[in-house]
Amino acid sequence: MIVDGKQIRPIWLDADQTTVKVIDQRQLPHRFEVADLTTVDAVIHAIKEMFVRGAPLIGVTGAYGVMTAAINGETASDNLGFIRQECERLKAARPTAVNLVWGVDRAENCRRIGIHGAGLIEAISRRKNGGTVNVLTHCNAGWLACIEYGTATAPIYEAFNRGVDLHVWVDETRPLNQGSRLTAWELGKHGVPHTVITDNAGGHLMQHGRVDMVIVGTDRSTHTGDVANKIGTYLKALAARDNNVPFYVALPSSTFDWNMTDGVKEIPIEERSPDEVRYVQGLADGRIARVLVPPESSPAADFAFDVTPARLVTGFITERGVCGASEAEVHGLFPER
Amino acid sequence: MIVDGKQIRPIWLDADQTTVKVIDQRQLPHRFEVADLTTVDAVIHAIKEMFVRGAPLIGVTGAYGVMTAAINGETASDNLGFIRQECERLKAARPTAVNLVWGVDRAENCRRIGIHGAGLIEAISRRKNGGTVNVLTHCNAGWLACIEYGTATAPIYEAFNRGVDLHVWVDETRPLNQGSRLTAWELGKHGVPHTVITDNAGGHLMQHGRVDMVIVGTDRSTHTGDVANKIGTYLKALAARDNNVPFYVALPSSTFDWNMTDGVKEIPIEERSPDEVRYVQGLADGRIARVLVPPESSPAADFAFDVTPARLVTGFITERGVCGASEAEVHGLFPER
Repeated sequence: MIVDGKQIRPIWLDADQTTVKVIDQRQLPHRFEVADLTTVDAVIHAIKEMFVRGAPLIGVTGAYGVMTAAINGETASDNLGFIRQECERLKAARPTAVNLVWGVDRAENCRRIGIHGAGLIEAISRRKNGGTVNVLTHCNAGWLACIEYGTATAPIYEAFNRGVDLHVWVDETRPLNQGSRLTAWELGKHGVPHTVITDNAGGHLMQHGRVDMVIVGTDRSTHTGDVANKIGTYLKALAARDNNVPFYVALPSSTFDWNMTDGVKEIPIEERSPDEVRYVQGLADGRIARVLVPPESSPAADFAFDVTPARLVTGFITERGVCGASEAEVHGLFPER
Repeated sequence: MIVDGKQIRPIWLDADQTTVKVIDQRQLPHRFEVADLTTVDAVIHAIKEMFVRGAPLIGVTGAYGVMTAAINGETASDNLGFIRQECERLKAARPTAVNLVWGVDRAENCRRIGIHGAGLIEAISRRKNGGTVNVLTHCNAGWLACIEYGTATAPIYEAFNRGVDLHVWVDETRPLNQGSRLTAWELGKHGVPHTVITDNAGGHLMQHGRVDMVIVGTDRSTHTGDVANKIGTYLKALAARDNNVPFYVALPSSTFDWNMTDGVKEIPIEERSPDEVRYVQGLADGRIARVLVPPESSPAADFAFDVTPARLVTGFITERGVCGASEAEVHGLFPER
């Protein structure tokens, strides 16, 4: 929203990528004050004392609290244990607010996906004697989509933060270019080396040994291992298989569909406005503009997702660890289902 | 070039898609006259009497002459025999002009590729009891690239002209969008039903039985069957194989490389300006504009081609007929090599 001519949100991350900023809503409308939160105690205080209020905002603040816990716990010997403990404190800040629990658990899941996935990246790094690990990703499953860390990008951020030499090939991801617009922006802001490529390029790069690993997110995966994700994911999975490149899908277990067994046949694929294909948005002369690419009279069609069959998926990276893309392995990791 | 404020070329095709128009250059600079050519005799007359002159223009006029022969020979019982006979007459119009021979042979090759490839489309049409044949193509291997008919599009035009019910899925073909800009324009002008899709969509469409056949062109193919073509072709070939969709490559035999044996290893892949990936050109407010999609600071890379291994190619459509993508079959069709 606009406040005094400036775009403002009730909570945001400072340029240092560490300090959480919130509007102290107790002071409104008479005073506009921003509080800096750098400890879990400060976050809990801001939730308890109602600097922030409203169910969704409390959830988001809880998620930022997990990030704060992760930053503060970076030097702890039992890093994950520390975060888990802090998460319990965060969830207790406002006992009735179910969104707070949701936000904290969700962010904790992303953090744990990052930790489990970073292990895979580190293993490749060791195999390459510390040489650059090239990860290809499609679409945006980053913190812009998931509050903090993201899913597919969580292992990338975690490995990068641990000092692994890595580089990300960013599929532009037509038609809406979530890769070139959002993933590139996220990675750039965090300082992660990356290169934007067309969706067409991945196969060529894999043929020539320039991709060590693919990590994507998912909008829905069957418990049998089929993966629905942004259109074009299936083509990358085929190329990965053809070139023996590991293809991983990062997801919180809430994304599993525990009923469907055949993703290709059963998962409904959204068809969106053809104008998303026909027009491309970008910057021209310093302002957002859009251009029409095909002839005005040519029809277009916009399929938003595709389904990658389990046989092409090397593994799932979940909050509980990594498992193969099969009913047996998924249920092995989540036996309560 | 601009003449009296109008964009003008020395030769063009009238809106009826049948009449060849040439500037009668004998009258210049005193009179600007345009001649209509609708018969092979008229084309030969225009070449002989020097309405057109200059080596390249004579070659192009010869190519248009082949089109005129094809249109006039449509009802002939031995259609191909008629065209071949007319081509000999065209080539004899100016015996010294080697470009004339080149232009005629090249266009005749495209025409014959069309005839051989149309047979494949007709066979699918019969199998579907006349139901719509869905052809997917990538990039532009149409007449804009090849003077007349094109290569990959030649079978499409030929089958369409014969009345086959068909529809073309047009890959937009990032980064330069030759599919959405050029192939869509060509097909639309000729009245061929088509739909523009993102490069990401083909795999999904094949999984759901919505593609009956893929036809692409090639910039260089090894005589062992490996195919270099616009980046992203390999991904479509993988998807075609995974879904049992026939994947054909249309080419005049001059495009075969008779020396190379391993296309993936040996064919050099051009890397072009990253700006081709970063900027997208289109129409905004009635004029050509370009927009920047990724963050200004994000690097990009632009690989122009990829190589599809022979094992993924169902067959080559050449001026001599259709053959498998293997050294034995290619040499079987071109034993003189």
